[in-house]
Amino acid sequence: MSEPRPRDRPTKGEATRGSIIEMALAHALEVGLEGVSLGVLASSLGLSKSGLFAHFKSKEALQLAVLEEAIQRFAERVIVPALARPRGEPRVRALLENKLAWSIDNGHGSGCFFAAAAAEYDDRPGAIRDRLVESEQEWLGTIRRAVELAIRERHFRPTVDPAQFAFEAEGVGLSFQHASKLLGDRGAAERARRAAERLIEDARLPRRG
Amino acid sequence: MSEPRPRDRPTKGEATRGSIIEMALAHALEVGLEGVSLGVLASSLGLSKSGLFAHFKSKEALQLAVLEEAIQRFAERVIVPALARPRGEPRVRALLENKLAWSIDNGHGSGCFFAAAAAEYDDRPGAIRDRLVESEQEWLGTIRRAVELAIRERHFRPTVDPAQFAFEAEGVGLSFQHASKLLGDRGAAERARRAAERLIEDARLPRRG
Repeated sequence: MSEPRPRDRPTKGEATRGSIIEMALAHALEVGLEGVSLGVLASSLGLSKSGLFAHFKSKEALQLAVLEEAIQRFAERVIVPALARPRGEPRVRALLENKLAWSIDNGHGSGCFFAAAAAEYDDRPGAIRDRLVESEQEWLGTIRRAVELAIRERHFRPTVDPAQFAFEAEGVGLSFQHASKLLGDRGAAERARRAAERLIEDARLPRRG
Repeated sequence: MSEPRPRDRPTKGEATRGSIIEMALAHALEVGLEGVSLGVLASSLGLSKSGLFAHFKSKEALQLAVLEEAIQRFAERVIVPALARPRGEPRVRALLENKLAWSIDNGHGSGCFFAAAAAEYDDRPGAIRDRLVESEQEWLGTIRRAVELAIRERHFRPTVDPAQFAFEAEGVGLSFQHASKLLGDRGAAERARRAAERLIEDARLPRRG
């Protein structure tokens, strides 16, 4: 990577804002996005509470910034590298594999930020839930489009239902989260890989002999 | 049903205890088991807080009683009727269908009590999490045993992995919860039925022609 040019260098305010979001994301992964406390955050960062409020006018504004950061990281780690893979089965497979890798290690220990947030906000209306639903719909749309291309490329059967495929792919990820975080099942990642493989194999167009 | 004999009739104390648990379960389905408030419960039931404490010495004792009640209802509505079905595929199918029916309508609106509690307690150690994990393991064990019998009855292939089947069946239920509660997808039940069907079909031993 090249040295950043001076005008790309974040200002002190931007750097502080970045540290607050980073720390808040780490907290959210431990105690949930709703459990993020401005007081705890301020003292972890050696800031006054009013210093923190200078960057985020409310707890919800900070939570939304944390959610945006998680969405951005998910795009960078899961979606972008998969879209660089060839259309068809390789891209679908990369989406599922990258998603599992994200769930296994999100940079702050195990667990998927979005699976946890989904359970936290599914019956809590508001701006956070709205943004979360939007990002989940985008993710499901990304899987659907990759499956549609796999059908067009004749890697998958024309009878495969892309929305059904996306529904089942989400199930694999959620069962991984459940088995690893709640049940402490060390074989959960291997089970998730096998489930994803079955999903792809069932969708595949049999090669002519 | 026959009239209960006098000695089966609950005492006033037992009836009050039952109403408290019933109301707490309804609250837990709305706000989560952790969100159950003794104060709110007492006023909903027209009891004093000390009157409620006479039945449950702590919030955790009440939460555990609510969890036991949910486990009991799950056994009655999901497991017992499935065990009455013939061994093999019919019993496996009944377990998955009854579980989906439970998730669609738990008597207090949509959503599975256990899926919500799992997300709530997966990183909150204590007696509630322990009991929840135990009941989840029992449920996975019930699916595994039904699959093992289906293999023995030659309904399912001998190469089917019962634990993998249970992992994927849980994924179907969790994806249903996710799609219906978070995303408001009205087609979620139909998607879950199709996913369960694919799971069973893949496991089935092809009939000899």
